[in-house]
This record gives sequence, C-alpha cells and structure tokens, in this order.
Amino acid sequence: SRRRCHYSYFPCLIKEMGSKMDTRRVIHSMKLGLALVFVSLVYLINSMFKQVGENAMWAIMTVVVMFEFHAGGTLGKGINRGIGTVLGGVLGCLAAILGDEIGGIGKPVIIAFSLFLFGAAATYCRLIPRMKKRYDYGFMIFILTFSLVAVSGVRAENVLETARDRLANIGIGFAVSVFVSLLICPFWASNELHYSTASKFDKLANCIQGCLDEYLKMSSEKENEAGNGKGYVQDCKSVLNSKSSDELLANNAKWEPWHGKFGFYYPWEQYLVVGEHLRELAATLLSLKACLQSPKQPPTMKRQMLKDPCESFALSIGWAMKELGESIEKMELCPSKVSLTPKLQSLKLQMNPPFSSCKMEVLETDENL
Amino acid sequence: SRRRCHYSYFPCLIKEMGSKMDTRRVIHSMKLGLALVFVSLVYLINSMFKQVGENAMWAIMTVVVMFEFHAGGTLGKGINRGIGTVLGGVLGCLAAILGDEIGGIGKPVIIAFSLFLFGAAATYCRLIPRMKKRYDYGFMIFILTFSLVAVSGVRAENVLETARDRLANIGIGFAVSVFVSLLICPFWASNELHYSTASKFDKLANCIQGCLDEYLKMSSEKENEAGNGKGYVQDCKSVLNSKSSDELLANNAKWEPWHGKFGFYYPWEQYLVVGEHLRELAATLLSLKACLQSPKQPPTMKRQMLKDPCESFALSIGWAMKELGESIEKMELCPSKVSLTPKLQSLKLQMNPPFSSCKMEVLETDENL
Repeated sequence: SRRRCHYSYFPCLIKEMGSKMDTRRVIHSMKLGLALVFVSLVYLINSMFKQVGENAMWAIMTVVVMFEFHAGGTLGKGINRGIGTVLGGVLGCLAAILGDEIGGIGKPVIIAFSLFLFGAAATYCRLIPRMKKRYDYGFMIFILTFSLVAVSGVRAENVLETARDRLANIGIGFAVSVFVSLLICPFWASNELHYSTASKFDKLANCIQGCLDEYLKMSSEKENEAGNGKGYVQDCKSVLNSKSSDELLANNAKWEPWHGKFGFYYPWEQYLVVGEHLRELAATLLSLKACLQSPKQPPTMKRQMLKDPCESFALSIGWAMKELGESIEKMELCPSKVSLTPKLQSLKLQMNPPFSSCKMEVLETDENL
Repeated sequence: SRRRCHYSYFPCLIKEMGSKMDTRRVIHSMKLGLALVFVSLVYLINSMFKQVGENAMWAIMTVVVMFEFHAGGTLGKGINRGIGTVLGGVLGCLAAILGDEIGGIGKPVIIAFSLFLFGAAATYCRLIPRMKKRYDYGFMIFILTFSLVAVSGVRAENVLETARDRLANIGIGFAVSVFVSLLICPFWASNELHYSTASKFDKLANCIQGCLDEYLKMSSEKENEAGNGKGYVQDCKSVLNSKSSDELLANNAKWEPWHGKFGFYYPWEQYLVVGEHLRELAATLLSLKACLQSPKQPPTMKRQMLKDPCESFALSIGWAMKELGESIEKMELCPSKVSLTPKLQSLKLQMNPPFSSCKMEVLETDENL
C-alpha cells in the first residue's frame, strides 16, 4: 500500500483515518486524555499537592509512558516498570551507600564503575531475544532508576524519602492507567488475537475460491475482467505477513487477567502454532495462484476435464476451512468434525493423476491443523 | 526454535548467547555503560554540577532512553526527542501562561482541558501506521513534555529557566549518545540491511539446490538420511518472515548520515521491494518442497527422464541467484548480466511439457527481480 500512496500522501492519510480501526483509535486517544486529566488532578488540587510533593511529575510520566493500546500492553509495561524501579532503586541505594562508606575520591569511582557494570549487564539482557520480548521495558527502567538513584545519592541526603515519594507517585500513575485502560471500554489483545486467527481461516477459504474462479473464468472469458477481485491476494499476503503482529498480540494477551472466555493459563502459544500453519498454507496458495496464471497451460480439453473435480475440491476445502474458523471463533469442538474427516479422506482419494502434485499439498497442509 | 527449546531453557539460553551476534551484543552493552559513565561525569564533577543544577538527571534519562543498538536508531530517537521536547515545551508554556492570565478556578480547568485535547490528539497521531513508524517516540515525548510543563507551570514561577536547563541537559545526553553510538565501533542499520538482503539470495539459491538434492536422493536412497539438511528450510522460512525486521532496519537506515558506500537519499525503499520479491520466491520454494515430498509422485521412469533437465535447471537458477546476490553486495552492475539474460531465456525454452507448471513460476518470480 505504500507504493500505491506514494504520490498522494494526504488523500491517502485521510482514507487511512477513515478505516474501521478509526473508532477504536479515537476511543483510545480519549482514554489517554482522560487518564492524563485524572493524574494531573494530583497536581492541580492544592491539598493533595502538599502531600505528594514535587515528585508528582513521576505520576504523569508513568501514565504517558505505560498507557498502551491493549489492556495487556498497559499491564505488562506497568508491571515491568514497577519491578524495574524497585530493583533499580534498591541496587542504586546500595551503590550510593557503598560509595558513601568509602568516601573521598573512591566515591565517584565506585559510582562510575557500578554504573558501567549494571548498565552493560542489563543492556546485554535486553538484547537476548527471549528476554527482549517480555522484559525489555523492565530492563530499561532498571538501568534508568539505578543510574538516577546511584548518581543523585552522591549529593542528596534524603535518598530514602525521595525513593518512597517517587514509588508512591509511580503507584498513582500505575493505578490511574490500569483503571482507565482496563475498566473504560478496554481493548483486549486476547480478543484481537482470537478473532484475527479465526478470520484468517475465512480469508484463506476466500482465497482458494478466488484463485479457482479466476482460473476457470480465464479459460472462458480470458482477459475480460483483469485486475478485478485482487482483494483476496491482499488478504492472503496479510496472512503471510502476520507473524510479528501475532507475536505482539500473544505477548500482550499473556499479561491480561481473566476476562470473557479467556481464563488464566490460556494456551496462547497454540494460536502462534496455528498461525504458523496458516502462513504455510498462505504461501502455498500464493504459489498456486502463480502456477495458475502461468502462460504455459494444459490444452483446453484437459482443462475442461479438470473443471468439475476442481470446483468440488475447492468447495469442500473452502467449506472445511470456514468450519474450522467458525469453531475456533465460537471456541467449541468443530460440530461437523464427524463429517469433516471422512470428507477430507474422500477428497484425498478423489485426487487422481490428472491433478498436478501442486494441489495435493493444499490438502496436506490443511490436515496438519 | 521456541518449541525446540521448551524443555531445555538454560542450555538453549547459553547457546543463544554463544551465537555470532554475541560479540556485537557485548560491544553494544559496553558502549552503553561507557555513555552512562560519560554522562554521569556531569553530575560527579563538582564544578560542572553547580552549572547544570538538579536537572542533570535529564541528561542521564536521555542517554538511557535514546541509546539504541543501531546508529540510525539512536539518531532517530534523539531527533524525535529533541523536536518533541521543544514543541511540547513551547505549547505547554503557552497553556500555562493562558491559565495564569485567566486565573482563579479557570486556571486548572484550562490546564486540564488542554491536557485532554493535546494528549488525545497526539495519541491519535501515534496510532496512524505511517506516523507510528517514524515519529512514534517523538509524539510520546511531546505528550510527556507538554503535560509536565503545563502542569508544573501552575506552581513554578521560573518556567523559562527550568525549560532552558532541561533542554541543555537533554542536549548533553544527546551529544554523549550520538558520540558513543556513531564514533565508537558503530553498528549501522544500513550495512545490516544491505548484507542481509544480499545473503537472502544465497540462502534461496541453497534452498533450491537442497530441495532438488533431497528429491533426487529420495528416488535412489529413499529414507536413508531423513532429517538431515533441514537447515535450508529454516533459511527459507527466515527469508519468508523477514518483513518486519527489514522494515525496522530500513527505517533506522534512513536516519543514518552519509557513511561508507551509502550516500544521502540512498533508495532504501528498493531494498524493501527486493525483499518483497524474495519473500514471494521463498513462499514458492516452500510449497515446491511440499510438492516434492508429496506421497503421490510420477512413476520412476518419468522421474529418471526429468532428472537431467531438473539438475541443469537448478544449477542455472542457483547460479543466477548467487550472481545477483553478489552484485548487490558489491554494489555493481551484475558483470554477467550479458550472459544472464540469454541463459534465463534458454531455460524458459527448455521448459517442456514434462515439467509441471509448478516449476515455471520459480523462473518467473526470479525474472521480476
């Protein structure tokens, strides 16, 4: 879509704004505005200000930084921030105290050395893919808090008081963010992952149908309606490229508390496994489409012969995919499982020599599911 | 790889640590440690402390937050941070002054309203994909600075002085980060994108060869060496899933200044286009492999007949891919372009009916490049 929009930036931007994501974006933006107003009350109301002191800016900072689109993202960032702050604060205090004990020129040396050591170690952890995925933000906050506490411990006398005040403020920011994010019209990453996985089955079913329709039409009407019905190719490609967004959603979903149909310890990993199979199927469909559009084609007579079995095959496979998607969406055992299996078996037997091996593994990939 | 590592977390972690990325990770970690020490000198040296005041924590914060693995990432975040801070600061000051003018109960109302308005508007911008990709961090910093300045403007008298001090400190942090990131053993996103794109050609060439070798071996030795040589499938899948990492690299590469072979206005978009074609080819190869492993195969006699043209085809295609990859890596016109085109033409003619249409579009995808 980038290429398409290259010469018409603004119309495209407006069109993008008008998409169906839009309502959710507006709601999310207003939620952030609301959270900001709530947390600034801490500052704006006189009596409260005397209690929390100048550190109220930490509450605002916490809200701005941890407020994410999905409820799970907000919770995950908040928990990361909490743990990172506490760990960094404790270790930073220890470093500052150690520096004080030694005193003299040894003090800045100890501080600088500990900064280097902990900064480098935590940064190394951030770069390990397994750690980065879930705790990246926590490590960053750890480095930040550790540095601030260790360095300012050199001059400030009341380190403990400052720490307590800041923690309290971060707590306020956390509470406001979680309250607004989870209780006011929450956007659950779990829901999005669930329904997007189910809809992928539909997309691929349409793609199978679309491929075949185009092929059979091509044989009769040839170049009559070129460029029409390319939507399913886009759908297929969106399934193919869904890996990173799926992983992000699963990651956020893991932080989300029990809600709706999703309990604790819900097997989010399984969605990634299903997604992987669907991506393989999408890859197969894309190359099937390329095969069918190849200029080298079997003679017309042979193609006529293929037409009927092809159509019944596409219908059955499409039907099976839609059934599977629906049963995932409704979270129930596929009601037609009993009828699905023999149907797939008979399809496999139907495959006779006229079919190229190309089509065989559409069936096989599907069976893996 | 996640599934493989499920039951052996620690050995796997150690193995992951021992990968070739490791040296770069260690160097990056040490660079961050160094930058932290540099910036903390501002705090630790007495005479400087008197000049910059308590706001030195902003310098530390800037380093921790903007120091990224790639030089382009650091620069991009730094520039975003700078622009976001200035814009947010100016607008925040205006809001605070407006609140002061009105005074009384109107003051907190104005502040709260402006917080809601600007916070929501900037958050909406963050959610537009086109904006998010390059300016996400800038918008966040804008919201943060705007909120802090507008809210603290309610109480502090010397808003302008505070703003000046903070900006100076952010400038120090920016300078230290850029100095360490770009001048000490820099990791350029541009280099990584360039060489990873070139290496993809190699990977796919090996995949073509591997597929065919396995198929021809299967016909003679059958299940002799099952499970061996699966490396090329992993390579192929890594190409298939490279979209998001490519986009990140291209995004960072755009921020990077002139260096090495890459000038200003270097066409980074082209790498994404080439990557798109390579992903399509990878998808085709994956399904070709599935085709070849299908239990339904043509009779042995026919396969023997296919063996020689198949081998010469795979050799030529693999050779062409490697030539293309090498010419991209060396940034020169393919030296054998003159011989490449007729070779591909003759390959196309060689394609005779015994070949299934499956193989045709390997060639076609390749020609698109």
